[in-house]
Parts: sequence; C-alpha cells; structure tokens
Amino acid sequence: MDKVDNQSNCLSYVQYDIVLVMEAKIKFITGGSITSPRGLHAGATYAGIKKEADNALDLGILFSEAPCKAAALFTTNRIKAAPIVLCQQRLQSGRAAAIVVNSGCANACNGEQGLSDAIEMAELAAWNIGLSPEDVLVASTGMIGQPLPMNMIRAGIGQIVLSREGGNELARAMMTTDTIPKKAAVDVRIGDSEFTIGGIAKGSGMIHPNLATLLCFLTTDATIDIDFLRLALRKAADDSFNMVSIDGDTSPNDMVLIMANGLAGNRVIEQDSDQASAFQEALDQVCIYLAKCIASDGEGASKLMEVTVKGAPSVAGARLAARAVASSPLVKAAVHGGDPNWGRIMVAVGRSGVEVMESKIDLYIGNISLVKAGHQLPFDREKVVAVFRSSEVSITLQLNLGTATATAWGCDLSEEYVTINSQYTT
Amino acid sequence: MDKVDNQSNCLSYVQYDIVLVMEAKIKFITGGSITSPRGLHAGATYAGIKKEADNALDLGILFSEAPCKAAALFTTNRIKAAPIVLCQQRLQSGRAAAIVVNSGCANACNGEQGLSDAIEMAELAAWNIGLSPEDVLVASTGMIGQPLPMNMIRAGIGQIVLSREGGNELARAMMTTDTIPKKAAVDVRIGDSEFTIGGIAKGSGMIHPNLATLLCFLTTDATIDIDFLRLALRKAADDSFNMVSIDGDTSPNDMVLIMANGLAGNRVIEQDSDQASAFQEALDQVCIYLAKCIASDGEGASKLMEVTVKGAPSVAGARLAARAVASSPLVKAAVHGGDPNWGRIMVAVGRSGVEVMESKIDLYIGNISLVKAGHQLPFDREKVVAVFRSSEVSITLQLNLGTATATAWGCDLSEEYVTINSQYTT
Repeated sequence: MDKVDNQSNCLSYVQYDIVLVMEAKIKFITGGSITSPRGLHAGATYAGIKKEADNALDLGILFSEAPCKAAALFTTNRIKAAPIVLCQQRLQSGRAAAIVVNSGCANACNGEQGLSDAIEMAELAAWNIGLSPEDVLVASTGMIGQPLPMNMIRAGIGQIVLSREGGNELARAMMTTDTIPKKAAVDVRIGDSEFTIGGIAKGSGMIHPNLATLLCFLTTDATIDIDFLRLALRKAADDSFNMVSIDGDTSPNDMVLIMANGLAGNRVIEQDSDQASAFQEALDQVCIYLAKCIASDGEGASKLMEVTVKGAPSVAGARLAARAVASSPLVKAAVHGGDPNWGRIMVAVGRSGVEVMESKIDLYIGNISLVKAGHQLPFDREKVVAVFRSSEVSITLQLNLGTATATAWGCDLSEEYVTINSQYTT
Repeated sequence: MDKVDNQSNCLSYVQYDIVLVMEAKIKFITGGSITSPRGLHAGATYAGIKKEADNALDLGILFSEAPCKAAALFTTNRIKAAPIVLCQQRLQSGRAAAIVVNSGCANACNGEQGLSDAIEMAELAAWNIGLSPEDVLVASTGMIGQPLPMNMIRAGIGQIVLSREGGNELARAMMTTDTIPKKAAVDVRIGDSEFTIGGIAKGSGMIHPNLATLLCFLTTDATIDIDFLRLALRKAADDSFNMVSIDGDTSPNDMVLIMANGLAGNRVIEQDSDQASAFQEALDQVCIYLAKCIASDGEGASKLMEVTVKGAPSVAGARLAARAVASSPLVKAAVHGGDPNWGRIMVAVGRSGVEVMESKIDLYIGNISLVKAGHQLPFDREKVVAVFRSSEVSITLQLNLGTATATAWGCDLSEEYVTINSQYTT
C-alpha cells in the first residue's frame, strides 16, 4: 500500500478543519477511509478482471467484526445489474457484515447467469471470512454485458488479506476510469459519545442523479436505530450524490451503502435527538466531500464546477436549476475552454423547469457579478477567464423569486471525455 | 450564389423518389428550398454581424407576394429571446407576409433593448419590402447576451436583393456552426390539386426536444385552413424536430414557422380530408428530412444516428426511449469511436422512463442482431464496428411489451464538439 497515497485527500485544495455543530465537534481525519471506524477491515487483490496496469486492484472485501445494521440506496435505472438485485433482497433484513466488490465487469445485462454468479461471489467471500452468505453483499462495476470471469474471482478471493488499514486498497479496487481513490472519514464527539464515520466511493463516468455515485460504501461504529439510519442516508445522498452530474447517464450498478456496527458503544442514536443531528451533519459532510471528489475526478475533467442557485421559489426548483447548469454540456464545454459565455448558464436555468423571470436574475462567476436583474454588467473578461481556468469554478445564480437554495456539482467537458468513452471496450 | 451548392442535398446518401400516399404523389424537388412554392422570394447579405468568413451571409429576408396564413411553434425555454416574444405576439393574428432573420447574435438576454431592437429590425425590413411592420416576423440566432448591432442591420437590410431563387442564400444566412445549409422542397399532387411545400433549417448546437431546431422556416403555396395548418405543424414537428437531440441543451431562440400563401389555387385544405392527409404526409417528410439534416450536421458530428424503438407499451414511452438512446453521451461517444459497447444502449433505455423488462429486449445494430431476450448473441465484432463506422448508424430496440414505435435522430459525440463549444465566444 502506498503510504503517500493513503494520506492524501482527493480534493487537495479543500481544507477541512473542525466543524462545530451545536455541541458536536466533527473533525475530518487525515488519510481517513472506510476502515477508520472501529472493527472494520478491508483488503483487495488483483484478480485479472481489469486490464493490467501498475498497482491495479480489482477485487476487494470490506468486513465488520460485529454484525451491522445496514441501509442502502439503489439505481433507479430499470436495467439493474445482478448485484443490485441480490443486495435489494438481502438488505430487506436491515443487516449485513461484509461486502465483496469487483471492478472491470459490471455483471449487468447477464440474465440469470449474472444473478447466480453474484450469489456465488458472495458465497466465496463468506467462506473466506467465515460468515453466513446471507450476511455478505456484492457490488460490481465496469463493462456492461460481459459475464463475470468467475474463475478469476474464485482464484482471487483467497488472496485477499484483510486489515484495519485496508480501506485505501478497497477504494482502489473499485476504481474504473477514476484517476484517484475517493475516501474520507470524520470523527464526531457529542456529549459523552464519540463515533466515527468513514466512506469510499468510485465515480468517473455514467454519473447523474439518481444516483450519481456508481458505488459508495459508508461505515460507522455508531450504535444507531435502523429507521433513522435509512432516513439519514437518504437525506445525505439527496444533498450530495443526487446533486452530482458528469454526463447525464445513469448506471445499472449504482449503490450507496451504509453499515453501522455499534462498536463505539454510544447510546443508540434515534431520530430527533442531538446525537441524530450530529450524526446527520457528519454523514452529510462525508457524502458531500465524496460527491465533490467524484465531480472533480469526472472522466476527462480538469476542474470541479460548483453551481449554487439561491432565491428559488422551492427547494425542488432550486435543485432542478442547479443540476441543469452543472450538467449542461454547453456550460461544461465553456468552462473547459475558459470561455465566459454566460448566456449558456441563463438558458440552462431557463430550460430546467424552475420558474424564472429573466429580469430578476443575478449571476456571479466566482465573486464577479456578471448579470444584475437580467442585464449584463460591464466586466473584465480576463478576470472571468481566470476564474474559469482555476481548479474549482463556482457559479451562483440568484433568482430573486423565493428563499430556496441548492448546490450541485459537476465538471468541465473535455475532448478527453470523448476519447475515453469512444474506446471504452477496446 | 453557388450553383453546385444550390443543387446538393444535405443528406447526400438518402435517395428520395416519389412517395405514394393514397392517391397522392409526393416528390422531392432536386435543389428545392423555401422559395420553391409559388410567390416566395428571399435574399441575404453579409452585414458584418458574424465573424467574417468566405461567402459568409448573416442577414436575410423571406417574403411572400401574397399575405400568408402563418403558424409557429416556439422554444419551451423560460428564457425567451426578444424575436420569440415579438413573433408570439404577432402570430396571434395567424397571418404574416415576411420574416427577417440574422445570425451571429441571438438577441437573447438583452432585456427591453432587445425587444425594441427586434421591433426596429422588423420595421426596417417592412420599409424595404413595402409591407406593414405587423406583417413582418423576426428571428435571430447566435451569441446570447450580446446586443444586436443595429448599425450593421440598418446598413445591411437595404443591400438585400430578393429573388425567386433566394432560398439557398437565406438558408446560408442563418447558419452559425452549421457546415451545410439545410433545405428541402416537395411537390404534391392529389386529384386536381398541385401544391408545393418548402423549408430551410439551421441547427448544429443547443439542440434538444422541444424544440430541437433552433430555426426552421417552412412555406407552402397551398390554400389551407389556419386551424388545420396549426395542427399539421404540431404533428410534423413532434415526429421530426422533437425527435432530434444533439446535446441536451435548448435554445431561447427555437422557432418552427410555416407560412401558407394560397397561390396554388387549390380547394381549401381542411382537416379530415384526402388533401389534408397528403399535406400532412408531405409536411412530415420535409420536416423529417430537415431534422435528419440537423442531426447529421450536429456540432462536431461525423455521422447520423437513427434510433428506433419498437414494441413499447405506449407511443410516449417509445419516444422517451428512442430519445434517451439518441441523446446518451456515452452511446454517442461509443458510436463515434466505433466501439460496440451495446450495454450503454440498454442502460440508456433503462433510465429513459419507459417500462422495460430486460429479459424481453432485442437489440439490433444495423441489421445485426446483438441481443435477443436480454441475452447477448455471439456476434462478429468487426461487422458491428463496420456499422458504427458508416455515415448512418441505425440502432433498433424491440421491447416486446406492446405495439408502439418511435424513431429519434442524433449524432456521434466527438472531440470536435468540445473544441467548438469551449471557444465559442472567442
């Protein structure tokens, strides 16, 4: 395992310090990942599923010492990969103890063979760890319509060595066209309680609400009520993964999973409590951080776009508008080229479905006020180009029609996105 | 005027012969355009609005000797360009006699100044032709958020020479990033009646249903009932321009206009008649032809994609599915690269909103059967690559859930699309 890589953050320019929420202290853990909470172990190997590359990993396992309460959100695509079908069945129980994941093959569009392969993959992992197969979940990502190479998976699973530091390896094992592993962890202290939330994600392409993630696994050692855990996950995903767009396509493999093993020994976190508020805020922060990592590492992306819409008549409208701008190919191409073509931002909002009045809209690129009450202000073109050329481009729209706000994330659209995606199977 | 250009069709590989519909004969006119129907005159000039290029035209007029019944469809974007606002007002009367159009500047996001400039542009054209300003419509396309250079328009309008052969010039005058003018005309004979329908369009970028066109002007010398004309235009646009996607963005300037001057002297075409059926079929053919021209000349496009969905539970579902595949950036990039990544087609249908059962879907690339009942068949990769490498790529999905069918058109996504759109204003 590369120590430097393990310590680095995927958003190097974001400095997270201690966040104070009510009485709680939420602190990002340097180099933290999915194995930061107590009792979590992970590991990965190169089984040969992905095309070989330096340091390639393509098969990994996450395992909790104690059985977990587990909740998940799944792709809304009507074509669902076999692991999704299996996880939807298994998570009805609200419990899980491990997940086995591979990259290089999505195990989607494989019919009944796909489902039996996913079941066998869970069995192999269960046997390796010493668990009941029903407590093992499965996730896959990669090429659609190719059968899972079960011989490689059978041979590979036995090679996986689990450790308390294995979170980074697991993050790397689920990368496809991602260029960096995405991981985060926060430490939460509230009153006498102290617990940790960790997570890893993979994104890069076929990214759009709902869900934008492809794969995100979250863990916590908090003791928590399963109903609140489900609600908290939905809320956190709505403000993070469901506000990221890279290319408007959604995958049959999308899944956001959270597992809570209770090893922190805190009082059970239940809805409408200070503990619950702290947990929600911490989970939101982890998910937003991972979502921004996904956006900034979009296929071919050279920068992160953050689009905030204020003054919308409703939250739903604010979300629509922010996502429309963040996912507009014309806005994304203009940002890529450093071209201050602000009219494209206006018309992306205009087609988003939100109510707008052109004569009320204010528009900011970074801190530069470009449009006031629908009219272009005189602006220094070079200063706007400089904002577009930075690694994080913020666009803010004030609709002046209400009080609702939303933020969405995306990335620029580059020639490289096309190059990557025109030769994916070859 | 370039005679060769005037004779060429934008879809050189499509051979249109006589189409028989009931008793009617519908014949595409070689080199036909918007001035093919009786009494139509057009002309254009280079006023200096667009950046100078060889043979550039950027300001033109279409004029009918006889006043016309006129109907139009407008952008659904809530940000509407000034000419759209003006045309919506003027077309409430259902009549018009001319339209003045410019490229290089969209006259959108210009507030009240934009509207007064559009009004003046119509006045200038009316004065030049000798019409009442209320009978003159206005259209603009190009950069958003820049004021119309009225000095250039004032100087340019007087230079326009109208002629019965000016349709091609007008088609060129409204091009922005289009590489070829888009135009067509058909001659229709039914019983004792003979009339002509002509049209020109510009597309290229910011293309998506509704409307996908940016600008399309249609003319006919048929005598026709205004209510039927409105219905016929809506129906034709639904099956053509509303089934084209290039990049998912819609413009504030979209407009499809039809003007009917009655100079053919036929019996009035009214709904539910043989004449009406022939007119509808002929209008559909012109609009579909222009829509395909727009798709195949999309920004950076190297090929036309035609996506047909059969066996859908509803027409609405078939349309959703066909458009989702035709507009999927991942499918478009795969087609561009000649990469037979068929799983992306399946998942684009899966996210489209149409009801699907994976185990019932058949998929064809060209004539090659790739997927049967959700299972990949053995296929010759090189043959599929050959289809993707041709200038027209057809993709057919049979959902096997009903009887509804729809066809959508799009183009491949190339590195050049990004290059064009990352430097548009510079």
